[in-house]
Amino acid sequence: MTALLPEGFRDRLPPFADSAAALEARVLEAARLHGYERVDPPLAEFADGLEMRLKAGGLHDAVRFVDPVSQRTLAIRPDITAQVARIAATRMGHHPRPVRLSYAGSVLKLRASQLAPARETRQIGCELIGLDSVAAAQEVVAVAVDMLGAAEVRGASIDFTLPDLVSTLAAGPLPVAPDQVATLRDRLDAKDAGAVAALAPAYLPLIEAAGPFEPAMERLRMFDTTGALASRLDALTRIATALDGRVALTLDPTERHGFEYQTWLGFSLFADGSAREVGRGGTYTVVHESGAEEAATGFSLFADPLVDRVVSVDRRRLFLPLGTPAADGAAMRAQGWVTVAALDAGDTPEAQVCTHLWVADAPRAL
Amino acid sequence: MTALLPEGFRDRLPPFADSAAALEARVLEAARLHGYERVDPPLAEFADGLEMRLKAGGLHDAVRFVDPVSQRTLAIRPDITAQVARIAATRMGHHPRPVRLSYAGSVLKLRASQLAPARETRQIGCELIGLDSVAAAQEVVAVAVDMLGAAEVRGASIDFTLPDLVSTLAAGPLPVAPDQVATLRDRLDAKDAGAVAALAPAYLPLIEAAGPFEPAMERLRMFDTTGALASRLDALTRIATALDGRVALTLDPTERHGFEYQTWLGFSLFADGSAREVGRGGTYTVVHESGAEEAATGFSLFADPLVDRVVSVDRRRLFLPLGTPAADGAAMRAQGWVTVAALDAGDTPEAQVCTHLWVADAPRAL
Repeated sequence: MTALLPEGFRDRLPPFADSAAALEARVLEAARLHGYERVDPPLAEFADGLEMRLKAGGLHDAVRFVDPVSQRTLAIRPDITAQVARIAATRMGHHPRPVRLSYAGSVLKLRASQLAPARETRQIGCELIGLDSVAAAQEVVAVAVDMLGAAEVRGASIDFTLPDLVSTLAAGPLPVAPDQVATLRDRLDAKDAGAVAALAPAYLPLIEAAGPFEPAMERLRMFDTTGALASRLDALTRIATALDGRVALTLDPTERHGFEYQTWLGFSLFADGSAREVGRGGTYTVVHESGAEEAATGFSLFADPLVDRVVSVDRRRLFLPLGTPAADGAAMRAQGWVTVAALDAGDTPEAQVCTHLWVADAPRAL
Repeated sequence: MTALLPEGFRDRLPPFADSAAALEARVLEAARLHGYERVDPPLAEFADGLEMRLKAGGLHDAVRFVDPVSQRTLAIRPDITAQVARIAATRMGHHPRPVRLSYAGSVLKLRASQLAPARETRQIGCELIGLDSVAAAQEVVAVAVDMLGAAEVRGASIDFTLPDLVSTLAAGPLPVAPDQVATLRDRLDAKDAGAVAALAPAYLPLIEAAGPFEPAMERLRMFDTTGALASRLDALTRIATALDGRVALTLDPTERHGFEYQTWLGFSLFADGSAREVGRGGTYTVVHESGAEEAATGFSLFADPLVDRVVSVDRRRLFLPLGTPAADGAAMRAQGWVTVAALDAGDTPEAQVCTHLWVADAPRAL
């Protein structure tokens, strides 16, 4: 049998598609209750406009095509965050800050990775535009936790990072030559103690300051003898405290991968049963057309692993034998029943996976 | 200011995006209650596989690109019906018939028309695979009407057509040379009396047999002196009767445009306030890999005009002043309130468009 679909694409069949839609609606409802309002940007945009708002190389793996109308290159979005930033900076630029926005949609990549083989994925997220304070981070992290809760994930945990940690230290108490900062960051991210020892041995303790939140924070505080990190560490403590033990917390202060465009805070979301992170967020900067910059805090959920399971929705299906009056079916549907009408004499409740049969004007359990 | 988005693409902003999502969910729920289960095919597929299941020229306006993985051409779907037919014929080929499937998703076109300038549109639909009987058509039309009702459209109406009318007559009581049937069909579709009179004058009464359902049916019955159309006309009468006056009905027996792949029955759905039809459906044929053919009945809604309005959802927003305990907000959200927390001293309920303020452990209307 030939492959029906290209690698990295798939169909969701019953009952998974209904379940995924129901779970996604629950997840978005959690965001709505925190005041986040939906935006729905298009699947395709001008490639240059989209690229401007994506991190470096962001459009490298996007599907691009020439628009016969404008003669310009369009791209199918590989990410929605950049579109929401565009909306916040342009069409909603005049709204009072902070602006709370949520979104859900499909994104497409031309190439996938071995670890993440899907090329079409579902992205759900929230962006708080106008603030990157501790209070903003507390709210955004709480919303993320509520959304994971709405998806009923088990074993949710958050891994925090400090994306600008190395540049802060390198420009301050632990000087590093500017042309070596990127390499140092990279080697710290890789936990390559040998390379770090050769480059800047003072940074070695950072490799050890990763793991469960409390002990990692203690090591970081001991490392921060000059107090250069004090405000960041206090902020992390306040964010963690506000979570009040709702999820497990870890810290990986030098993790950089995936946080290339975050400012002082980054976090990854994990859940039992998913090999990779199920979400990622942090503080970042929205650039306006004028060049003005605006602080923002947000996160995206990589929603497929969260919604790919069958939730125990009401599975009652009522079989209406041939000749059942239409009004009877309508009355039962108005009560929330799923009705499946026989359309010819051969139809059976069994073939239609029905749980109930309409007999003598009432549903009888099968 | 430069155009932010390419022609035919747009953002949905608050409160429209939330409204559209809510309305779409209601519309899909109406289908679910009739036993239609969701399928969710991917945005992109192999172009040749998709084209095989689309009507002639169907991929002409699709976005296509070369897949670096398979080195084959992929297309972004311009239509979801063809994908659902693929699923029904392959992965769900072994399910007992009829199979009831629903779907909702975005479709993309490279070019749009002046009448329908959008290039990304939302398609929602239902397909009943395995039957094209009168009972099947009655159900499918009833589901469509319920879905329009769920969207609270005003002035819903259905325009029926008989896509194979001309070929049935031409092969029977009113012979037409085979090489002229297509031209005749085309001229009848255009209501071009002069051309029809020159080609096949016996068909002229069909031009008059269009309009409100009952009188049009009467004219058709008078025209059908041989009884060649009797079964079709009886079927139409039974479908109309089952609708029991729920929507206005019209008949345009020779309408062909948009029904190129329908078999004996086609219908268009209209609503007040929408210049074009808001949906289209009918009976058709699903082709299996083996070449076997299977009858089917279904319809698609062109959902944007249906969901593009602000529904009166609960607009209560409760402002939580700085320092409100997190537990208070959580408790109110658990009661269904949307809470908007102040994140700095400058935040006001007015700027956040809140209707209520949290004062002394209770919401106070503003």
